[in-house]
Parts: sequence; structure tokens; C-alpha cells
Amino acid sequence: MNRRVFFASLLGFALALVTTLASANPFATGGISAAIGGPSPKYVFFFLGDGMSSSQIQATEAYLTTINGGSARVAEDLLRPENRLNMSKMPVAGMQTTYDSYALMTDSASSATAFAAGIKTQSGTIGKTPDLTRSVKSVAELAHERGMKVGILSSVPLNHATPAAYYASVDSRNAYNDIAVQMVDSGFEFFGGGGILASTGPVDIWDYLTAHGYEVRNDRASIEALKQQPRDKVVAINPVLLGGAMPYAIDKPAENLSLAEMTRVAIANLYQPRGRGANRGFFIMVEGGKIDWSGHANDAMANIGDMLDFDAAVGVALEFYQRHPQETLIIVTGDHETGGMTIGHATTGYTAYYDVLLGQTKSYEAFQNGPWKTHKAAHSEGYDWTRPDNLATTPAMIDLIEEEFGLAWDDLSVFQQERLEDAYDVSMAGQNRYSVRDNRALYGGYEPIVVTLTQIMNERASIGWTSYAHTGVPVPVFAQGRTAGVFSGFYDNTDIAKRLAQVMRLPSLPVYRD
Amino acid sequence: MNRRVFFASLLGFALALVTTLASANPFATGGISAAIGGPSPKYVFFFLGDGMSSSQIQATEAYLTTINGGSARVAEDLLRPENRLNMSKMPVAGMQTTYDSYALMTDSASSATAFAAGIKTQSGTIGKTPDLTRSVKSVAELAHERGMKVGILSSVPLNHATPAAYYASVDSRNAYNDIAVQMVDSGFEFFGGGGILASTGPVDIWDYLTAHGYEVRNDRASIEALKQQPRDKVVAINPVLLGGAMPYAIDKPAENLSLAEMTRVAIANLYQPRGRGANRGFFIMVEGGKIDWSGHANDAMANIGDMLDFDAAVGVALEFYQRHPQETLIIVTGDHETGGMTIGHATTGYTAYYDVLLGQTKSYEAFQNGPWKTHKAAHSEGYDWTRPDNLATTPAMIDLIEEEFGLAWDDLSVFQQERLEDAYDVSMAGQNRYSVRDNRALYGGYEPIVVTLTQIMNERASIGWTSYAHTGVPVPVFAQGRTAGVFSGFYDNTDIAKRLAQVMRLPSLPVYRD
Repeated sequence: MNRRVFFASLLGFALALVTTLASANPFATGGISAAIGGPSPKYVFFFLGDGMSSSQIQATEAYLTTINGGSARVAEDLLRPENRLNMSKMPVAGMQTTYDSYALMTDSASSATAFAAGIKTQSGTIGKTPDLTRSVKSVAELAHERGMKVGILSSVPLNHATPAAYYASVDSRNAYNDIAVQMVDSGFEFFGGGGILASTGPVDIWDYLTAHGYEVRNDRASIEALKQQPRDKVVAINPVLLGGAMPYAIDKPAENLSLAEMTRVAIANLYQPRGRGANRGFFIMVEGGKIDWSGHANDAMANIGDMLDFDAAVGVALEFYQRHPQETLIIVTGDHETGGMTIGHATTGYTAYYDVLLGQTKSYEAFQNGPWKTHKAAHSEGYDWTRPDNLATTPAMIDLIEEEFGLAWDDLSVFQQERLEDAYDVSMAGQNRYSVRDNRALYGGYEPIVVTLTQIMNERASIGWTSYAHTGVPVPVFAQGRTAGVFSGFYDNTDIAKRLAQVMRLPSLPVYRD
Repeated sequence: MNRRVFFASLLGFALALVTTLASANPFATGGISAAIGGPSPKYVFFFLGDGMSSSQIQATEAYLTTINGGSARVAEDLLRPENRLNMSKMPVAGMQTTYDSYALMTDSASSATAFAAGIKTQSGTIGKTPDLTRSVKSVAELAHERGMKVGILSSVPLNHATPAAYYASVDSRNAYNDIAVQMVDSGFEFFGGGGILASTGPVDIWDYLTAHGYEVRNDRASIEALKQQPRDKVVAINPVLLGGAMPYAIDKPAENLSLAEMTRVAIANLYQPRGRGANRGFFIMVEGGKIDWSGHANDAMANIGDMLDFDAAVGVALEFYQRHPQETLIIVTGDHETGGMTIGHATTGYTAYYDVLLGQTKSYEAFQNGPWKTHKAAHSEGYDWTRPDNLATTPAMIDLIEEEFGLAWDDLSVFQQERLEDAYDVSMAGQNRYSVRDNRALYGGYEPIVVTLTQIMNERASIGWTSYAHTGVPVPVFAQGRTAGVFSGFYDNTDIAKRLAQVMRLPSLPVYRD
């Protein structure tokens, strides 16, 4: 065993060196000019895991090790290449600080403005300075002006904060209709993944798209057909959407395209070696947006499912990189961490129990909209929250918890049972023995019994959560390919956009619209 | 403001590029041989923050921003160089996975064996293979065999797990007397910081040190005198020690040397430009060991205090680097994260309140051994834990909490008050309404009222904790100076030792003793 691990890691080191030398290191010929000299990358992929930091990556690799037949407690298993994510095997790693103008815990709108356009702004604002007086252009818009094709993909709505920062400037991320108008105005060649929020008013976005030459597709067959017959301007919306976003990957309906499948369509549609627009390359941004949503909800299984979907999309870009190693740059990072996820919990100490996670078969959302809704309808009449043992004396709920989360009531500690009783009271009757202020902090606005169930299940697997919001922990950056080396080091999120503009030979950021 | 931030970060980027080109990038002339070719670093510093990962770094920078008159909510303040740690300003950053042979959450013995000697082993074992059949040599021992001088510094005992991995091979980290014997046998030129555990039996370590030519000093004046009159072999133990470790930095008695002061002594003692041993250079390992201890205890203020002390020691190495930029390599990393610290909490959401931390003036340990001990002695007689409001009806305790932690009872939420009542019951009477199993998870073996106080105070500052143990989150690596570039990327903790051995031109790791 030791020898195998040793040689595997020696090999890894040698490969990392070779890859770095071959493609990632911009300083190979010396001088700052050399760093941004030589051919600039022609095909640029920017992967953004919303709410993804080191903990989400480590939890996913530990889970992957478990489902691949290994143990998350054994280094030899954890180190096997098949148990590592594509991103963490990239040769270049960096780290970014994520705070915005007025918050240690950034919002997704301000962080996206930072890494898309190179400026700090206030939480909630997209593509504008913190005083809202000036608008900035993103690297995608600047690349587009240079003739590169642009694709914007997200598992959440296409006019949500992160994708919006690549084409819109608005005071508030909630101005969804206005953002959608700017999305159409961008003229970007490809949008794909989630739907469009506030699409019917004041401007009807579907009409506006058509008027501006966009074709909208929303079934698997016609979306996949784009691989053979690319269109100039297309919006590919997954057929089954919940709230304008794609369902969690672990709940994915067969007719939906995964983020990886959608990425493959985008590449085929935008990569045109011959004809009009040929040889100008492309910029593709892919957001795994529901890593964040499941982090807010403290649901590790939904989180890991979307991490795997996101990383599979990175894998698709790596396949493209293998065919165009001298012309491709791939960057993978997050905008902030969400949920305060940690790889350890007081109840489990030094031992990891990732097999516990296998007891959960659907996301908190699918559980809440399905079995929980049915249960509540059947049992909420005449509910008396002042009784101490409502849950313990409701066999249907005890059974439901075991069935949906693999948690046996008698195996829970007194404290865990009490937390579930308190949460059940609020979910059934709207109140319990705590204050409104306490319940806001305890359940973060989520369905109390549902979020308490995922928290207890997660802590028994050795995964902790501390928040329902974003956190301020620095976020790793991974890079591979031409000029990847400039993304090494510890820097600010605004530096990502600035360095990207430099290596792509775009104007220095920030670039104002006026 | 925007312009200032923009220019500051542009400047930072340019500086990072220049520094990388000047000294950190081993690939500048191309080829793998170049990476480990050219002069190898003559002066190597390895700084190890025990229990330090990204959250500890970000919390410390947010605190630093606050005490320097800025706001931890304002990016412009957080980005000011004076509010950043020395380590996070280094030009090269990497990231390491920390799991050991049989645990996702590593122990300090196995992790130190990994980054000191390049092999994975089981938790609790130092310098031996997981089956305990073979012993390995550390980079410090190999450097010493090549004639480099070696200094081992730690704020915890000098025969604790982390320092021990640099000179000892033992089945169990608890074999303190055996480890101390091997410490003396190493012949390393300098040991400094904490004391020696189990020093009086079976072997009397003080006699053994003398017999082997070591001089032991343990007062400030005689330790500082080493700067002018270096000794060949010396052990410098801080005068006031609690449990063999230095007190927390925030409790530091004036007669003690800080880790930074001790590092300055070590450099002066080991740097000998002329005479015997000249020109062979040195390897200095400095451990900030109580970052970990305060993480276990979930005390952010003690944690941050020791982070600042540790980073100040990095600053001393950077001063040395400025005088010997072509010959010096500095690496800074952690062995694992401790406590599951996060930069956010459900009670505070998106807002950081670092000023709350200013209410705490001493570590949990100093509070527990001082005011708490006095309080308990005065109030524990006849204590009835079944009463629901013991704490609320004890004005002396209400006052103590406000005085020592700045927490006003009436300002706490019902849930926070209830947690304090439950903890107070156990601290005063040994039990409360929960089970023994629950209390073990709730308080982790710490004094319940003390740890609950620091947790509540920390969450009100927006810092969360999830565990009393180590966690499995990947840990950043920072590097500056000659050959620093090889520490870029995402790799395993064993790769740190292997890469260090390569750039120092030591034999390939692992090197077995037999």
C-alpha cells in the first residue's frame, strides 16, 4: 500500500510539473510581458460553483470515495484519481478573498461583479459601482466586442445574479425583467440551463428574444440537435424547471439535460472552426448555482449532487482542452462559501461516516414538496404544540424519517430528539417554546422539521453547518491550460477579472460603459 | 475609494508577479531540472500553524482590521496591507489534503509525519509506517546530516507531536519520555519555546541533555543573550509555562518570549556566517501549537491571539529573507483545521460583528482557572440542577459574564440563555436534563459553562464552530523565496516533505532509518 501511494503521488507531482511547464506557466520565458505575452487563450472556460469552497470540495470527494467502494477514512482510497474531482486535479491552484464593498460575507451579485468586471460593489448590485453612478463591462462583453463568441450557462435562472454580471448593469439583482432585457441586448450567442425569471412583464422577454434573432429551445431533442446544427443566437432552457432553476441533480428528471450535457451542447454550438466567426474563439461561463441553494438549506446530499454535476461539466471542458491544449484556458472557482459547511462535527469527532448520507434519496426540496406535504396535511388538524412528545408519539412521522433519511428514532440522542420535537412543533403549528428571534436563527426561514432533519443527518455523517447565509472564508481557484499560471497565489476576487482581461488581451479593467 | 482599491490591488498584482519572477518561480528557465536545479535554498523556514486553515486566517484578518480602526465589513479596510497577515501576502499559494492512513480528520502526529517525512501513517504515530514496522527520517534530520543547523521551535512542549515528527520515531505520540530522549539524540542545535513533558522519568531528560552537551536556559535575559553569544547546542524554555506549553498569547506574561522573539533568537543563534558550520545554512521549524488548542476549545479570541503571535514569527523570517533573498525559502502552512471554525453564523447572517470579540480580555483557560474557579467555589454548595433558572437568578454570574465576555444577559436570546443554563448545571452539579452522550457532544469534555460562553460570544461576532476535534478541510500553503514556486497547486500533505527534500537536494523521501 505504502509503495503504491508513494509512486502514485510521485507520479502526480511529476505530472503537475510537466503540465505546468507545458501549458500553465506564463513566466516560463521570463518578464511580466511574457506572462501576458505569447498567444492569448482562444477558448476560455470559467466555471463558477456558487457557494463552493474547500469544504464542499472535500465533502464531495469523501462521498465519491464512499460510493466508489472505498472508505472516506482511508487515505489510500481518498487519494485515488477516480475519487478526486476534476477541479482538484488541475495543476494550478490559487485562493481568493471574497468580501464586497460593505460585507465580509459577500452577496452573489457583488461577488460576480468582482470576478466578471473587476470592481468591488455593494451586496445586491450587479455591474455598477457601489455608489450606483457608473456601470462596468464584464470580460465576456469585452471578449464579445473582440469577436469571440460567448456562452452563459447556469443551473439557476439565466437572469439570476451570477450570469447577469456577465451582461447586465443594474442597481438591484431583483430587477429580473430589466436584467432579461439586457441579456437579450448582449447579443451573446448561447444561453443555456435554467429559465428566465419575470419573463412576461413589463417587457415580454419571449417576444423580445424573437425580435432580436434568438431562437428558444426547451426540449432535450431540439437542444441536443444544436450539436449538429449550431444556431447563431440561441437560448436552451431545460424542459422541467422548478422556480426557474433546474431541479437539484439528485432529483433530475430524465428529460432534463445535466450541466455537463448542456456544456457539451454549448461547446459544439460555439466552436466553429470554419465559416463566419471562425478562429475568434469563445468565452463560456458555467455556473453551478444550486450548490449555493442547497448550502443555504444545509442539505449536504443535494449539495454534493450538484457539486458532482458541476464537476462533470468541468470534465467536458477538459475533454475539449485535450483536443486544443495550446489554445484553451480553464478556470474553476466559487464566489463564496454558503452555509458554513465543515468537514467535522462534535457528535462524530475524528471519525467520518459518509455511508450515513446514502440513507437520503432526494433533496430537502423534493422531500418537502412530496412526503412532508402529505404528512402535514394528514396530521396537522388539532395539533397541540405545548405537548412535549408530538413527534415521538406519531408513528407515521417516525417511519417517514427512517424511510427518507435513514434515521432510526431510537438511535438518536436525547438532544437530537428534542431538536426534532421543537422543529416539528413549528412546522406543524407555527410556534414552539422558543422566541421568534430564536426560531429565525434556528431554522433560517426554512421548513423547521426539514432543515433539522438534514442537519442531524449531516452531523451524523460528520458534516457540520453554522449558517443559512454566505460565509467569508477564502475560496480556492483552480486553473489549467494556456496562461493558467497567473491564477496562482492568494489574491482578491477582483483580481480574477483583471488577470483574465490581461491574459485575454482585453482592455485593462475596470471598463466603464460611459 | 474605488480608485484607491483598484490601484492597491493592481500594485499587489504587479508586486506578486515581480516577486514570483525574481525569486519564487523555479520554472523560469524551463525544464523539470530547472525546478530543482540552480542553487538550493540555504536558509529554510517551515512555519506550521497547528489547527490553522482558511477560516482561522480570515477571522484573524477581520479582527486585525477591527483593532486597526477599520471595519471588518468594508472591503477597502480588509484589503489594506496592514490588515493582512504576512502569510497571506506571500506570492505563492497552494493547498494540501490532510487526511491520514485511516482518518479523514487527521491527528497532529500523523500529519506531522506526512509533511516532515513524506509518508502517511495512522493517527497517534510519529515517524513510523502505519504497520509500525519501519521508521522514517524527517527532512530536518536529512538536512542535519548534510551539515545544516537545525532549530525546532514550538509554543507547546518541545516533545509534543508536531516538533517530535522532526526528530523522533515512536509508535505513540504519548511516549513523551522516549520522544524527549530522541530529541536529545538528534543533536539539533536549537530547541525553543515550550517545556518538556515527562522530563523526569524513566530517563531524567535534564541530566541527559547535559550529558549530551546541551545548555538549558529558561529566563528572558539568558535566552536573549544567545543573540550575541550563540551556543552550539541549546534548549531555550520560556520561564512561565502552563502544562509545559507557553500560555496563550493573549495571556502572555511579560517575562515570556513570544514566538516571534524566540524565532529571532533562533535565527541569531543558528546564522553563523563565519567559523565552524558556516555556509551550510539552517532549517528552522516554528510551530504555533496553541492555535490548535484554542480551536479545540472553540475560543476565537485565544485562537486569533495565537494566530497573530504565529504570524509575527513569520514576519521575523521575512526580515531575514529581505537580507538574504536569493538564499532563503519560507513555507507557511497548517497541519489540519481544528474546531470546524467558519466565518459566519445563523444568528448574524451576512453581517460581521468583530467588535463583539473586544469584550473578551483573557483566554477561556485563564478565565476558567481564575474568575470561574472562584465563582464556583462560592456558589456550588447545595446547588439544585433541576431548578430551571439557576444562572438567571445568580447576579454574581450574570455580572461575571458581562465583565469577562461583554455579554449582557438581557440581550441574549431565549435559546442562548437556555444553553447557558444547561451548561451552568453541568459545570456546577455535573449533570443537566440531557444524557451523558449528549453532554459529551455538547461540551466536548471542556468546562460546559466556559465553552458555551465562548461559543455564544463567537457566534454573536459571526464566527461559528462545529466540532471539538480536528476537521478534514484542505489547508492552504504559502511560500516565498528560492524555489517557492514548487509549492503552488493542490496536492497531498506528504508532497510537502517530498518537494522540500527535492528543492533542498536531500535524498528522495521516504528515507528509512534501517
